Amino acid sequence: MSGLSGRDPSLLRRINSTVVLRALRGPATPTALTLTELVHASGLSRPTVEGVVEDLIAAGLVAEAEDDPDQPRGTARRGRPARRFRFRAEAGHLLGLEIGPHRVAAVLSDLTGRILGSLTREIAETAPADVRLEKCRATLGELLRRTGTARDTLRAVGVGTPGIVEADGTVHLGTALPGWTGLALGERLRRSFSCPVLVENDANAAALAEHWKGAARGVDDVVMVLAGLSPGAGSLIGGRLHRGFGGAAGEIGALHLLGREATPERLLSTTDEPLHPLDEAAVARVFAQAKRGDDQARRAMDRFLARLVHDVAALVLALDPELLVVGGWASGLDGVLDPLRAELARYCLRPPRVALSRLGETAVATGALRVALDRAENELFTLDEGEGAL
Amino acid sequence: MSGLSGRDPSLLRRINSTVVLRALRGPATPTALTLTELVHASGLSRPTVEGVVEDLIAAGLVAEAEDDPDQPRGTARRGRPARRFRFRAEAGHLLGLEIGPHRVAAVLSDLTGRILGSLTREIAETAPADVRLEKCRATLGELLRRTGTARDTLRAVGVGTPGIVEADGTVHLGTALPGWTGLALGERLRRSFSCPVLVENDANAAALAEHWKGAARGVDDVVMVLAGLSPGAGSLIGGRLHRGFGGAAGEIGALHLLGREATPERLLSTTDEPLHPLDEAAVARVFAQAKRGDDQARRAMDRFLARLVHDVAALVLALDPELLVVGGWASGLDGVLDPLRAELARYCLRPPRVALSRLGETAVATGALRVALDRAENELFTLDEGEGAL
Repeated sequence: MSGLSGRDPSLLRRINSTVVLRALRGPATPTALTLTELVHASGLSRPTVEGVVEDLIAAGLVAEAEDDPDQPRGTARRGRPARRFRFRAEAGHLLGLEIGPHRVAAVLSDLTGRILGSLTREIAETAPADVRLEKCRATLGELLRRTGTARDTLRAVGVGTPGIVEADGTVHLGTALPGWTGLALGERLRRSFSCPVLVENDANAAALAEHWKGAARGVDDVVMVLAGLSPGAGSLIGGRLHRGFGGAAGEIGALHLLGREATPERLLSTTDEPLHPLDEAAVARVFAQAKRGDDQARRAMDRFLARLVHDVAALVLALDPELLVVGGWASGLDGVLDPLRAELARYCLRPPRVALSRLGETAVATGALRVALDRAENELFTLDEGEGAL
Repeated sequence: MSGLSGRDPSLLRRINSTVVLRALRGPATPTALTLTELVHASGLSRPTVEGVVEDLIAAGLVAEAEDDPDQPRGTARRGRPARRFRFRAEAGHLLGLEIGPHRVAAVLSDLTGRILGSLTREIAETAPADVRLEKCRATLGELLRRTGTARDTLRAVGVGTPGIVEADGTVHLGTALPGWTGLALGERLRRSFSCPVLVENDANAAALAEHWKGAARGVDDVVMVLAGLSPGAGSLIGGRLHRGFGGAAGEIGALHLLGREATPERLLSTTDEPLHPLDEAAVARVFAQAKRGDDQARRAMDRFLARLVHDVAALVLALDPELLVVGGWASGLDGVLDPLRAELARYCLRPPRVALSRLGETAVATGALRVALDRAENELFTLDEGEGAL
């Protein structure tokens, strides 16, 4: 690290802290390390490591590890074993929020992303923005209380919600929720927290979630479709979210209108009355009827499927992903996979694998948590480009 | 550069050469520099620069610049002016080839991408692969002769052709040209050259070309549509080509089939007979008739436009580019821009800017040249990641 000696000393201290924290976090799971091991892992001198560890303990980010008799150390030692240090994952918390048409959901984790609790509350689709935000605040407040988490230990809050979301968290356009277009959602939520609040489109959040701990684990070129009556999609390209130039990538809701075909309201209707596009309960009933063999429901399913294939094929042809994940509803979608695969094979020169969401209804909140966790990890474990690579 | 002293000496020499060449290339256009200026620009010692320049002169990549009386030096000097050195752009050549359904085209440049000549030859759409390849060889051979270019000065050859192209240049799937699917195009062409041959999808090549010197200059999020009766598209995301997981991104040719609508052959037909999908001359006639006010031709245009809007909207909704470039035909397309803009505004939450291709029929060959130039620039001016950043 001699090349850094001429730099700003506070920057040097920050670099050294980051190096030590990274070593304690390990490549996959946090490990407890001795000072000697930390010197080896960090490439820093022993006095530097001692100083950094002391500072990190004072900051609450590192603690001395208790001995774990189940995991004996590799090298046998006489006398008192060397002190070992661990990353304090409990030193801070992350919150993921879903604000959807029918529910708000909150999920809480420690600094390694381990889930500590979650809570979901239903809300009327017609609820105005203020009521929806208040329900959201009450839900997350209750989750913090139940898990005994102090609000000021939150390091970042992620939010997943329908619509085109600008970088500052303002909803540029969101037709699924009343009063959502133009809402300064990020700014409104920031009043409740002293930490950063990051807002992401719901389908984008779901894509991140499936990549993190769902059907797309280990797959870096993914399209995730939230198959609603007004579907949206999120895409990862090379493992990174593709938001598009104006944040509107994957907003395929209007695509079917191009064919001047049936409106979404009529697609899944089994009567002469249009079905409300966001009435998931009614949709689930149609799915169930179709499964029992009801003719009218089957025809409705076929229409729905044709629409889904159409929307999905457009995304697949444009992006050529390795994997397509279908989610957004709790149940019934498994019946859609095989027909979807068959149709994609007809229209795509190179059809992707097709998988059902593993996270189901929790995908959006989990993805919002991942957004918050990314922010915290960036602060703890990453140096800005301007600070020089290690 | 003291930190590099412990490395492999041949690597060190290569790094120093690259640094000096980069300085001579300049950020935009090549400049002639004195040794003193090179020492300053490269950060290397004067003896090192002297040695490197000597080596580069011996390799033919650098020459002493002749004095340019129109551009007097900034600092007035007495006596003999300092020697200045320049990058020899003429030290090597790049070739871009288009192999399309109706023509083969070749374009030649020097090492800075300056175009030295081009040549286009028509070919029957029904020509078998061997005949098409032979026509291609004859065309590029004639271009080399006409420009007095020795074949062994070629540093890379780029090729743009319809179909899904694998990394080694094999056409995985290409229905537009007879015998194209499965053709080891890269391997076949490599027999004619001692330099690397790189094969790229034609729409991808056209996207690179418009970004390099066409309608998309300075725009990094671009979708380029080759609007044929069987359209294809190429996309740049963050300035880089998005090929997709299997190289099939943008292969939207089958998208319209999803609506079970008219087949492409019937879309632009003004009679009961289907129009051949690749008969551009016939298509141009229909465009011209529509412009003169012929009713049947207008209806055909409307059908064509509906199809184009449909295909393009899918790409735009999936990717949300800043700019959409429409090209692929020599003439007539300007009439589709305004209706296309109006339709996109209806269906896209955030419609992109729409522009006509500036390169027209030369886009694919120009993009193929850019692919070859990228390869040469990588070799001359870039160090592999494994060699360490500068």
